Amino acid sequence: MSEYRPPLDDIGFCLEEFADLPGLAVLPGFGEVTGDLVTSILAEGGKLAGELLSPLNSIGDQQGSRLENGVVRTPNGFRDAYQRFTTGGWNGLAFDPAHGGQGLPWSLSAALQEMWSGANLAFSLCPLLTQAAVEAIGVHGTPMQKALFLPKLVSGEWTGTMNLTEPQAGSDLGQLRCRAVRSGEHHLITGQKIFITWGDHDLAGNIVHLVLARTPEAPAGTRGISLFVVPKFLVNPGGTPGQANGLRVVSLERKMGIHGSPTCTMAYGDNGGAVGYLVGEENRGLEYMFTMMNSARLGIGLQGLAIAERSYQMARDYAHQRVQGRVEGAPAGAPIIGHADVRRMLMTMRTNVEAARALAYFAAGALDRARHQPEASAREQSQRLVDLLIPVVKAWSTDLGCETASLAVQVHGGLGFIETTGVAQLYRDARIGPIYEGTNGIQAIDLVGRKLMRDRGAAARDFIAGIRASSGDLAGAKGEDLSALRAGLAEGAAALSRSTDWLIETYGREPSLALAGAAPYLRLFGTVAGGWLMAMAALAALRRRSEGSGDSVFLKAKLATARFYADHVLIQAEALAAQVMRGGPSVLALQAEEF
Amino acid sequence: MSEYRPPLDDIGFCLEEFADLPGLAVLPGFGEVTGDLVTSILAEGGKLAGELLSPLNSIGDQQGSRLENGVVRTPNGFRDAYQRFTTGGWNGLAFDPAHGGQGLPWSLSAALQEMWSGANLAFSLCPLLTQAAVEAIGVHGTPMQKALFLPKLVSGEWTGTMNLTEPQAGSDLGQLRCRAVRSGEHHLITGQKIFITWGDHDLAGNIVHLVLARTPEAPAGTRGISLFVVPKFLVNPGGTPGQANGLRVVSLERKMGIHGSPTCTMAYGDNGGAVGYLVGEENRGLEYMFTMMNSARLGIGLQGLAIAERSYQMARDYAHQRVQGRVEGAPAGAPIIGHADVRRMLMTMRTNVEAARALAYFAAGALDRARHQPEASAREQSQRLVDLLIPVVKAWSTDLGCETASLAVQVHGGLGFIETTGVAQLYRDARIGPIYEGTNGIQAIDLVGRKLMRDRGAAARDFIAGIRASSGDLAGAKGEDLSALRAGLAEGAAALSRSTDWLIETYGREPSLALAGAAPYLRLFGTVAGGWLMAMAALAALRRRSEGSGDSVFLKAKLATARFYADHVLIQAEALAAQVMRGGPSVLALQAEEF
Repeated sequence: MSEYRPPLDDIGFCLEEFADLPGLAVLPGFGEVTGDLVTSILAEGGKLAGELLSPLNSIGDQQGSRLENGVVRTPNGFRDAYQRFTTGGWNGLAFDPAHGGQGLPWSLSAALQEMWSGANLAFSLCPLLTQAAVEAIGVHGTPMQKALFLPKLVSGEWTGTMNLTEPQAGSDLGQLRCRAVRSGEHHLITGQKIFITWGDHDLAGNIVHLVLARTPEAPAGTRGISLFVVPKFLVNPGGTPGQANGLRVVSLERKMGIHGSPTCTMAYGDNGGAVGYLVGEENRGLEYMFTMMNSARLGIGLQGLAIAERSYQMARDYAHQRVQGRVEGAPAGAPIIGHADVRRMLMTMRTNVEAARALAYFAAGALDRARHQPEASAREQSQRLVDLLIPVVKAWSTDLGCETASLAVQVHGGLGFIETTGVAQLYRDARIGPIYEGTNGIQAIDLVGRKLMRDRGAAARDFIAGIRASSGDLAGAKGEDLSALRAGLAEGAAALSRSTDWLIETYGREPSLALAGAAPYLRLFGTVAGGWLMAMAALAALRRRSEGSGDSVFLKAKLATARFYADHVLIQAEALAAQVMRGGPSVLALQAEEF
Repeated sequence: MSEYRPPLDDIGFCLEEFADLPGLAVLPGFGEVTGDLVTSILAEGGKLAGELLSPLNSIGDQQGSRLENGVVRTPNGFRDAYQRFTTGGWNGLAFDPAHGGQGLPWSLSAALQEMWSGANLAFSLCPLLTQAAVEAIGVHGTPMQKALFLPKLVSGEWTGTMNLTEPQAGSDLGQLRCRAVRSGEHHLITGQKIFITWGDHDLAGNIVHLVLARTPEAPAGTRGISLFVVPKFLVNPGGTPGQANGLRVVSLERKMGIHGSPTCTMAYGDNGGAVGYLVGEENRGLEYMFTMMNSARLGIGLQGLAIAERSYQMARDYAHQRVQGRVEGAPAGAPIIGHADVRRMLMTMRTNVEAARALAYFAAGALDRARHQPEASAREQSQRLVDLLIPVVKAWSTDLGCETASLAVQVHGGLGFIETTGVAQLYRDARIGPIYEGTNGIQAIDLVGRKLMRDRGAAARDFIAGIRASSGDLAGAKGEDLSALRAGLAEGAAALSRSTDWLIETYGREPSLALAGAAPYLRLFGTVAGGWLMAMAALAALRRRSEGSGDSVFLKAKLATARFYADHVLIQAEALAAQVMRGGPSVLALQAEEF
C-alpha cells in the first residue's frame, strides 16, 4: 500500500472557510490559536500520520490483534507508535487544560482525527474511544473520578472504552441487562458486553471502561440505565494501577476489516462483580451517553471521508502509472488516467471527499461555537445546528466512504481484488462506518424523528434559508460553472425544503410513512448541504484567486469539482425528494410475512 | 451462514415470461424441453445447490485453495462435491449432444448457473471456465481437438481455463507477450499468465488451458494473437492423461473474496516450451475469444444477481428473527422487519434481484433464439439484441450484486461486519463481479463505442420501441400501480432515447465526451430495461391472477416490487440522462496532471 499523504491544502482550506478557524481564534479560550500554530500542528500531525501510522496500516490488517492467554496483543509496531503518539502530546489536543489538555478547538482536533483515520483507521479508534471516556467523565464524573482518571486519559497513559452493546441490546439500549449492585462506596458490575472496541490491549498501563448497567430497582427500558467507570486495574491511592478488577476478555471478533482494532466480548464479575464507580446520578446513563454522541459521530463521519481521501489518493496514483488501452487522442503508452471513464471515477471520488470534508468541518466549527461563543443564545443556535447536522455527517460521509473505496477498487481493476495492493483493505475497513456508533438507518431516524420533529423543522428551515441566501453571491460571480451551480442549488434547496415540510406534516399522522423516507431524506440533506458548501468553496477559490493567494492548481480544481458536483450529484436531488415524498407506500406495500 | 434456498418460483416465472421457454421448446433441437422436464431439472439442481454446494461456501472462504508443493489443494469437500456434480450430469446440460451434452436451452442452463453461483460462487467458477473452453474448442477446434477434448470437458472429467491476462495486458490484450513457436505438429508456448481462475486444482484428472499467445511473425497488437489448447497433461493416443506438459503454477493470489477459487499465476515453458495446439487459424485468437464472450459475460451477470438473491435471503431471514427497537404500531418484541427503514432495504434488495434476473433471463432467451431459430434473419435479429444487452447484464447486475450485498450487511448491523454470519463473505465475494470478464467500465465502453456505434443505434432504438409498445398494455390494465409504472416507463424510455441519440451524435465528433457518459448510460439502460421487464412482470402477474394460476403471495409481491421499482429506481432515469448528456465536460475539466 502506498503511504497516506495528509491533504494539508484542502484541510487548511476547509478549516479556514468552513470551520471558520480565524473566527474561532477570537473566542474566549482560543487566544493562542494563531495561524502559525495551526499550520505547524497540521504539518507535524501530518508527518506522524504519514510516516508513523500509515506504514502500520497493512501490518495491522494482516496480523490483527490477537487474544493470547487472556490478554490482547496488538500488531507489531502499534505499541511503539502509541508511545510516540502520546508522548508527542497528540492525545490531549482538544481537552481541558485543567486536566492536562491543550484546549485547542475541536475543529483542529477533527483535522487531526481525519489524518489518524486516513493513515490507520484501526489504530485511530483507540484514541477516539479514550476521547469519549474523557468527555463522559469530564462532564458527569465526580471530582474524585476526574482527579483519578482524567489526567491519565488525557495524556493517553491510560485508554478508555465504551461498553454499551449486549447481544440483545444493540441499537436498542433499553434492552440491556448488565447489572450493578451497590456495595459500600462502589457498585459491583456483572454481565457481558459485546463489540467493545479496544476492550483490551497492550498499549497502555490501564484501561478505563465506561459501562452501562442497571441497578436492582431501576425502571425498565432506557430510563433505568446507569453509567459506571470500571477500570481494568483498580487505582491505588497514589494513582498507580493496582489490583486487577473482576473483568476479562472472553473473545475477539473475526471481522471483515479494521483487524488491528481488537473488538472484544467482555465479561464483568465472573467472580462476584467487578468494581465500578457510578458516574453522575443513577438511571441517567443514557442521557450522559448523548453528551458525547455528537463528537463521537462527528469522529465516525471524519473516518468516512478519511478513507475516501486515501482511496482517492491510491486510485489517482495508480491511474497515473498504469498503462492499459489506447487513450483517445494520446500517444501509445499513455496511462489510464487519460481514459474518460477513469477520469469520471476519479472526479467522483475527489468530489465525494471534498463535499464530505466541507460538511464535517462546517459541523466541527459549529461544535466549537456551541461551546465557546460568549452569548448563550448564540451557543444554543450553534448547538441546534450541530444537532441537526451530526446524523448527516455520520451517515452520509460513511456511505460516501464505502462508495469511494469501491471506486478505488474499480480503478485498480484485477489488482483491486488482490489484497497486496491495500485498496481491498480500504474497501473492507470502510464498511464498518455505516454500522457503528448508530447504524446509518438509526441516523436517518434520528434526523427525521428527533432533529426535525423537536422544533418542527425550525433548524432545518434556517439551514435551508442559509443556502438560499448564498444564491445572490453566486449570481454575482461570473462564469457558466457558477450559474450551473446556482441553478442546481436552487433546485436542491427547493427539493430539500419540500421534503422537510412533507416529513413534518406526515410524521405526526403516519410515522412509518415518514420513516420510510428517512434514509433518502438524509441522503438528500447531505447532497444539498454538500452542494452548498461546494458552491461556497468555488466562490472562495475565485476570491482567493483574485487576491492572488493560494495555489492556482488547487483553486482551479475547486471550481472543477464544484461544477462536477452540480452536474453529477446535485442533479439527483429531485429523484431523492420523490423517493421521500412519494415512495413511502411502496416501501410498506408488503406485509412482513409476505417477504 | 444460513443455506441458500433456490428461488424456484421466480426462476420459473422468469424462464417462462422472459426467456420464453415455452416458445423455445418448439424450436428445432429443443423438442424434449417439456414443462415437466424443466420443473424436475430445476428442482434437482436446486437441491444440489442448496444441500451440497451451499454448505461448502463458508468452508471455501475460510480454508481457501492452497498451493502445496506445486499443486493446488481445494478446500475440504470441494472434491467430493465436484464428483457428485459431474456424475449427476450437471456439467454438460447445455452442450452439444454430439459430444455428450444434453443439448438443453441456454436459458435453462442459465437458471442452474444462477443457482450454483448463489450457493457457492467460488466453486461455480470451475464449471463456468470449462464451459468457455467447450465453446471455444467446439466452434473453432479441429475435428481431432474436438474428439480429444470435448467429451471429457463436457462430462467434467477434465476442466478448462482461459489464459488471457498478463501483467501488462489486462483490459488491453493487444499488449500480450506470451510466445508460441511452431515445432512440427504443435507449438511450443512460453510466457507467464496471471489471474488464471482454477488454473490448477485437485478436482479433475486433467486441465485444458486455452492460452492466448503470439507466433514469431505475428503482427503487433490485437491482430497478432493466436489461441492454443495447452493441456496440463499431454493426452495419450487412447485419450487418457499422459506425460506432464511444460507448465506450472507459480503462485496463488491472496484475494478479498472467492477464496475457494484458486487464482493462479501460470508459467508456460520454463524448460523450452509447453506443448500447445493451435485452435483455428493463426492471429485470430482474439476473434475466437469473442465467440464465447456473450455467454461468459451473461454468466457473470447471473453471478451478480445470484449473490444479490442470497444476500436478500439472509437479510430477510435475519430481519424476521432479530428483535431490536420498538416497531411503530406493533407490540413489544416485534422483529426488525417491522421497521420502515429495514423494509426499505429489503424492498430495494428484492427489487434489484427481480429486475436483474428478468433482464438476464430475457438475454438468455435471446441467446437461445440467436442459435436455434430456423430463419437466418430472425437469428441475426436475436443476436443483435444479445450483443446489445450483454454488457448491460454483466455490468448492471454485478453492480447491483455489490449494492445488494452491502444492504444485507447493513440489515445485520454489527453482526454484518463479523465474519461468522457469512454475509460479510457475500459482500467480499460480490466485489469481483464488476472487475472480471471485462471491468464494468469496459462494458460501458463496449455498449457505447461498439454496440451503439456499429449500427448507429438501430438495435437500441428497436429495443426502446419495444418498451414503448408495451405502454398500451399497461394502459389497458387497471390500478394506480400500473399507471405509475406506465408513467415512469415513458419517462425512462424518453430519457434513454435522448441519451442514445446524443451519444451517437457525439461519439463521432468527440469520443471522449461520449465515453465520459458511458457508465451512467449503461446504468440508465439497465434501469429502464429493468423497469420495462418489471412492468411486464406485473402484467403477467395480473394475468396469472385472473387465470387463478400461481401462488397469490408471489403474484401480489410482483405488483409491489414493480411499483417500488417505479418509485425508487426508474425515478433516477432523468438524472442519469443528464449525467450522460450534460455531465461530460465536467468529467474532463481537469487535466491529468491536475489530479
